[in-house]
Amino acid sequence: MSEQINRLLKNTTEWLRGTGPDADVVVSSRIRLARNLAGFPFISKLGKEQEDEVIDLVEEAVSQTPALKDTLFIKYRDVTELDKQFLLERHLISREHAVEQGEKAVALSPNEVVSLMILEEDHLRLQVFQSGFNITETWRIINEVINELERNLSFSFHTDLGYLTACPTNVGTGIRVSCMLHLPSLVLTKQVNKVLQALAKLNLATRGLYGEGSQASGNFFQISNQITLGQTEEEIVEGLEKVIHQMVSHEKEARQYLLEKRKAKFEDQIWRALGTLKSARVISSGEAVQLLSLARLGVDLGFVSSLKYSELNNLFLVLQPAHLQKLYGRALGPSERDIRRADLIREKLKVVAI
Amino acid sequence: MSEQINRLLKNTTEWLRGTGPDADVVVSSRIRLARNLAGFPFISKLGKEQEDEVIDLVEEAVSQTPALKDTLFIKYRDVTELDKQFLLERHLISREHAVEQGEKAVALSPNEVVSLMILEEDHLRLQVFQSGFNITETWRIINEVINELERNLSFSFHTDLGYLTACPTNVGTGIRVSCMLHLPSLVLTKQVNKVLQALAKLNLATRGLYGEGSQASGNFFQISNQITLGQTEEEIVEGLEKVIHQMVSHEKEARQYLLEKRKAKFEDQIWRALGTLKSARVISSGEAVQLLSLARLGVDLGFVSSLKYSELNNLFLVLQPAHLQKLYGRALGPSERDIRRADLIREKLKVVAI
Repeated sequence: MSEQINRLLKNTTEWLRGTGPDADVVVSSRIRLARNLAGFPFISKLGKEQEDEVIDLVEEAVSQTPALKDTLFIKYRDVTELDKQFLLERHLISREHAVEQGEKAVALSPNEVVSLMILEEDHLRLQVFQSGFNITETWRIINEVINELERNLSFSFHTDLGYLTACPTNVGTGIRVSCMLHLPSLVLTKQVNKVLQALAKLNLATRGLYGEGSQASGNFFQISNQITLGQTEEEIVEGLEKVIHQMVSHEKEARQYLLEKRKAKFEDQIWRALGTLKSARVISSGEAVQLLSLARLGVDLGFVSSLKYSELNNLFLVLQPAHLQKLYGRALGPSERDIRRADLIREKLKVVAI
Repeated sequence: MSEQINRLLKNTTEWLRGTGPDADVVVSSRIRLARNLAGFPFISKLGKEQEDEVIDLVEEAVSQTPALKDTLFIKYRDVTELDKQFLLERHLISREHAVEQGEKAVALSPNEVVSLMILEEDHLRLQVFQSGFNITETWRIINEVINELERNLSFSFHTDLGYLTACPTNVGTGIRVSCMLHLPSLVLTKQVNKVLQALAKLNLATRGLYGEGSQASGNFFQISNQITLGQTEEEIVEGLEKVIHQMVSHEKEARQYLLEKRKAKFEDQIWRALGTLKSARVISSGEAVQLLSLARLGVDLGFVSSLKYSELNNLFLVLQPAHLQKLYGRALGPSERDIRRADLIREKLKVVAI
């Protein structure tokens, strides 16, 4: 099973493909749905045998779902801790799913567009990713998948409340819609806090690049709805789309402002980031993410034309511990990782003339 | 006259030629002698007409000195403030000589080995530079020049005290011997303060790259004798030589230590410095000197083979305000200098692969 997981290393994972509308600001769009199987208690009350039963039921349903053709079905009993860490780094599974006790599994579609976590907080957590600002297509795909799954699985549903979930914050639609935004210019012009405060008032949540609890490293901000009850899925999707649209405009205006009003200093920051990335022999992941964020901006602004967007995006993935260890084929301690990370970045940025 | 001064721009000034013994640690050796003309009061009591008289006398003597053949004789009334700043940046004249009131002049030998300041603190301040650790040759040259000058000039001399000087700290031999050392590894290993304290106990003075009062920027330290009385010139020269010899050993040991014990971090620092120098679009002189110091170390340690030592050394000169303005042929304000400085450094370091 580890070998099949290792093959993903050669993939450009969907959410970092670097294409799609407004991909220079919106890295990716993501929707997840929470569902529980009727006739089974929520996961905290689920016995060992029932866990296996749920996994088998879902595996069977997945195999009969045309939208999930060629899906890789991974039972955690068959994989290593490193494999799970690797899937987590690719955002295909959640931290809780990777570390918590009990039988668990995940189904991954080719190209990593769909990920179906089994026995996370709910029996099912279905996620769909699309590159760029493309909530519409994400919504279309996840609908197709969940509808097909529902033909073979019966979900806990209450006519007044909607879909029932382990945590009340997900009850109703069980939907979470999010976009990963890259907002370096709003950060550089110190407007980002104001923007984030406005989002909080709209009941939108903000997280970092590396998931729940992570800081907004590398100027990446994941914006998502918090309310799942009292609105239709379509209203939630449209509401978020509108907000993201405004944020894209703000960020683009800030980039223009920096280019016009603070040109020398702004360009200097971007070129220095590239210079450091191209020359460092030891680099922490925190520093690398921060500098790669500026490099990304350099690509966006046309300073750097020799670097493919998907390759740059991919560096944000492979600089993480499990990816580095998979790439180098062995366990690496933190100081060795800092060296290998620098090697890898230098290699990838060789094509960039500074 | 400004045009003749501008021609020096194409020179690699002697003290930065980057050759000579132990040039990887000892940038240059320098001796200066202070002399006053018999029959004239010290400079503070010198009238306007006497100033002209001294200058004329010295000009005449210089023209009759074989060791000063082809000397450029510069009267300050014929040059601009920028010219003087430029000569100061090349260490050919002192700050006081550049800024203080009254008639002044300087005689410069081709290749800038000899500089004779007229009407500095004393009537004459003769300096000789040699690249690398070469006090012996410096001493030979300055002896030759002063002896030849003495055939045509009569110096104030007291049989008990020796040569008389305006400031009592120079009385006696009137000699100051100094070496400019580059001690990055003693700085990186935090040994340098201990070393400097030991030098102070030996009555040796420490200054920075950019002269009296300047800090030890770029890990450059100018070490010189303070005592001029009660020792022969030869004793002073030998005493300093011995100390510098030890410092060269210390620095080389520290480099070896860093290469062996802190290899990854050490190499990282050097390569990052090169990366920043090759990429920055705006750079202050302070930061540039600090980074060029590490680049110099990179050349010393063989990391960088494509960069000539003299070219790198020359950057320490041309990054200064007057040099930048001479190079670009017009007045440049501080922020524009930071941009032009970065341009110049990038251009020179193009040959360096990082």
